[in-house]
Amino acid sequence: MPKYHDELDAVLRALADPTRRAVVERLAKFPAVVSELAAPFPMALPSLMQHLRVLEDAGLVTSEKHGRVRTVSLRPGALDVLHLWLGEQRTPAERQADRLGIHLTRTHPKET
Amino acid sequence: MPKYHDELDAVLRALADPTRRAVVERLAKFPAVVSELAAPFPMALPSLMQHLRVLEDAGLVTSEKHGRVRTVSLRPGALDVLHLWLGEQRTPAERQADRLGIHLTRTHPKET
Repeated sequence: MPKYHDELDAVLRALADPTRRAVVERLAKFPAVVSELAAPFPMALPSLMQHLRVLEDAGLVTSEKHGRVRTVSLRPGALDVLHLWLGEQRTPAERQADRLGIHLTRTHPKET
Repeated sequence: MPKYHDELDAVLRALADPTRRAVVERLAKFPAVVSELAAPFPMALPSLMQHLRVLEDAGLVTSEKHGRVRTVSLRPGALDVLHLWLGEQRTPAERQADRLGIHLTRTHPKET
C-alpha cells in the first residue's frame, strides 16, 4: 500500500513539529482565520503560512478564502491514517487483553 | 506539560522515517535479534543500528544483550503517548458522536 505509507509519512513529518502540532490542537476545537491562528505564535506570518502549507500538503488541514479572510479547518478524518496504523501495532499481549475485555463484556454485561 | 510534548516530539520524529516504522511494525509482532531485524532492509548494519538508536532514544524500543546476541523489543506502552494525543484531538463533532454511541449502548444494550 504505497499510498497509505506516503500519507502516513507526510502526516507524521507534519506532526513532528511542535508549532504545527499546536495548530492542529487549536483547529481540533474549531476552525480559525489565519490572523487569530497566528496570534499565539512568536513568529512572522510568512513562517506560519509555511507551516500551514505543510499541514495542507499532508492532508491535515483545508483552507477557504472568503473575500480577504482565509479560514483554516482541520480536515474531517485527517488523523484516521494514524489511528489505523496505531491499531495495527497492537502487540499480541494487547490483542489478548482486547479479546479478554470483549469476552468479559459478553459474559458479564454491565448492570444498568 | 513539557515532558509530554518532548516525548511526543521524539516519538513522532522517530516514526516519520519508513525504515524505523517498519522496525516498529516488525517488533509489534514479537521481539527479534538484531541480525534478523536487519535482514529485510537493503542497508548496512551500522545504518540500521543508528535507526535502532533513534527508536531507543525515543523510548519506543528496548534492547538486551545475552552473550553476543542483542534482542530488541517494542517497549510496552511505547505508543501510549501518541494514543493519548490523538484522543485529545477529537473534534466536537466526533465527541458528540462518541456521546451518542455511549447513550445508545446504555439505552439499547446489545442483545446476546
